[in-house]
Amino acid sequence: MSRAYNFCAGPATLPEPVLQQAREEMLDWRGTGMSVMEMSHRGDEFVEIAETAEKDLRKLAGISDDYAVLFMQGGASSQFATIPLNLLGDKTSADYVNTGIWSKKAIAEAGRYAQVNVVASSEAEGFTSIPDQESWDASADAAYLHYTPNETIGGLEFDFVPETGSVPLVADMSSTLLSRPLDVSRFGLIYAGAQKNIGPSGLVVVIIHRDLLGKARKITPTMMNYQVFADNDSMFNTPATYSWYLAGLVFKWLKGQGGVEVMGEINRRKASKLYGFIDQNDFYANPISPRFRSWMNVPFTLADDALNNAFLEGANERGLLNLKGHRSVGGMRASIYNAMPEAGVDALIDYMTVFAKERG
Amino acid sequence: MSRAYNFCAGPATLPEPVLQQAREEMLDWRGTGMSVMEMSHRGDEFVEIAETAEKDLRKLAGISDDYAVLFMQGGASSQFATIPLNLLGDKTSADYVNTGIWSKKAIAEAGRYAQVNVVASSEAEGFTSIPDQESWDASADAAYLHYTPNETIGGLEFDFVPETGSVPLVADMSSTLLSRPLDVSRFGLIYAGAQKNIGPSGLVVVIIHRDLLGKARKITPTMMNYQVFADNDSMFNTPATYSWYLAGLVFKWLKGQGGVEVMGEINRRKASKLYGFIDQNDFYANPISPRFRSWMNVPFTLADDALNNAFLEGANERGLLNLKGHRSVGGMRASIYNAMPEAGVDALIDYMTVFAKERG
Repeated sequence: MSRAYNFCAGPATLPEPVLQQAREEMLDWRGTGMSVMEMSHRGDEFVEIAETAEKDLRKLAGISDDYAVLFMQGGASSQFATIPLNLLGDKTSADYVNTGIWSKKAIAEAGRYAQVNVVASSEAEGFTSIPDQESWDASADAAYLHYTPNETIGGLEFDFVPETGSVPLVADMSSTLLSRPLDVSRFGLIYAGAQKNIGPSGLVVVIIHRDLLGKARKITPTMMNYQVFADNDSMFNTPATYSWYLAGLVFKWLKGQGGVEVMGEINRRKASKLYGFIDQNDFYANPISPRFRSWMNVPFTLADDALNNAFLEGANERGLLNLKGHRSVGGMRASIYNAMPEAGVDALIDYMTVFAKERG
Repeated sequence: MSRAYNFCAGPATLPEPVLQQAREEMLDWRGTGMSVMEMSHRGDEFVEIAETAEKDLRKLAGISDDYAVLFMQGGASSQFATIPLNLLGDKTSADYVNTGIWSKKAIAEAGRYAQVNVVASSEAEGFTSIPDQESWDASADAAYLHYTPNETIGGLEFDFVPETGSVPLVADMSSTLLSRPLDVSRFGLIYAGAQKNIGPSGLVVVIIHRDLLGKARKITPTMMNYQVFADNDSMFNTPATYSWYLAGLVFKWLKGQGGVEVMGEINRRKASKLYGFIDQNDFYANPISPRFRSWMNVPFTLADDALNNAFLEGANERGLLNLKGHRSVGGMRASIYNAMPEAGVDALIDYMTVFAKERG
């Protein structure tokens, strides 16, 4: 078929112009006679690719020189251990907010290295809301506070940045980084697996305030030590060069779109349209408290679960792919990151309208 | 330019048919409307790609079901910590053989978790030879013995597999896996960063005897736990899907070439030609004891170091790229992995002949 509208939560759809450029450059990058994936990571060509990507990311996200930008491997899941190993320093405990499955994974892994205080949780309400910060039981001597601004499985998203005073704020922005404007200076550390808004899987971007470097525990593997990555421009060993290059192409595309301000407006509109449709059509439902609905991941259920397979089959026939919800929650989920055009959301709503009329 | 002969030690040149297929499938894999890098790692399409790659690798390398095959991230450098963290079990020490820069890196990292016994070293001779195994001071109670069958920087290679009795043998085969036949059953664990003979960087293949699973220390990050990867078909989290796909294309290409027996003959011939030329031409020299010369990485020096830049410039003009030796040893280095055609070695020898005649 021609290019489909792919609503996968990650690895997610990429901008078509990025894939076209990657295709054109596959066998010969700019007359060098090499594919980017065949280049020495220490050669002039790749160093330029790497530096340009970092520069463009800094510009897009507004990252000052107070922060190091690291290109690491192992996905966000590796960061769940890397963070306590690097940030605890001489402290023994860290604060975590529990708003869904990814929060819980981060909490479980941190618990192997630190005393974890779960300062707030919406588990009792089925992760459909986020507790007011006034009710949080934060600790003044926590090494950091970790939260998950957007839960990709539950479709639950913070509409505020927590206030933590002098305690560094750590955020898993795998699904939201670059989807809208952000005040990086509020954070101690931001990390994002690439496979949603940045590029292919196998790359994780870490933005860390330099004050937090140099405190890794002795048991930290060298390849998990932020200071080592910062000191070596993320090239202590061979990085994931091709993924880094593709991320750079995505950053260029984002700049061409007008940057995160423009993307934020488009993303807000895409989400509003889809939630608006779901709310006004009795056949579909979304359980999340409206204020905390994710702009990126829109879970929804049909009035009759027995129709799920028919819904998915019809969607596939129209080139609307990967709408099945995560196995842990069921139903449907439409992930509508930066690279999902508004026309894809329109096509989905058209299909949902027809399906509800015919089968509802 | 058209495709060059790229002698980079890694990331290294890839087979041209592999890159062509990747280019053709970039925007739409087999009519799915998606690039492979946009596919859910849990979807039918990618699961088939992943399973086929593993099956082909098992067939090519002769890997029995006694072994798990893992597709991890972080490169061989991450394995330097992952190995002691997983294999020490209730033992406290491990044996290491020191034959060059990569051995030393493995030793340094292991020393953070284990008592490391360096049972043999050729450092005093400048890593130009490998000590007879009879002289090794191995320990009967070592958790394992680690060695580096091929040192990519020094160009020094074992021509034998160490005998370790009941002590598991662990080998960093980043530069040699799939370059010739291998008796996997001699090993407890084999690991290989992909960016030499397997695919792009950002992927590391681990072949581990199942008896060695399940012994990870409590401090081991989950994403470094071999048992977790074995239990989840390397999909505990999102793997490096595109790199895994490309590795699968390389495996298919290798099968089409006739497998590792045929590659072994070609590689032996390529190396013999190049060393033969170096030995008979007074202008060039290779310092390694002939028995232990690497088939994969051929370092050589010119009679006059002042001509190095002129040599490299002339080579670049002819499309013979990345011949500069590693910064730690200087001189030149030609890496001639599986994907370097014999014609590339011939072209290099032609150039070296002309250069020596004109400038020697």
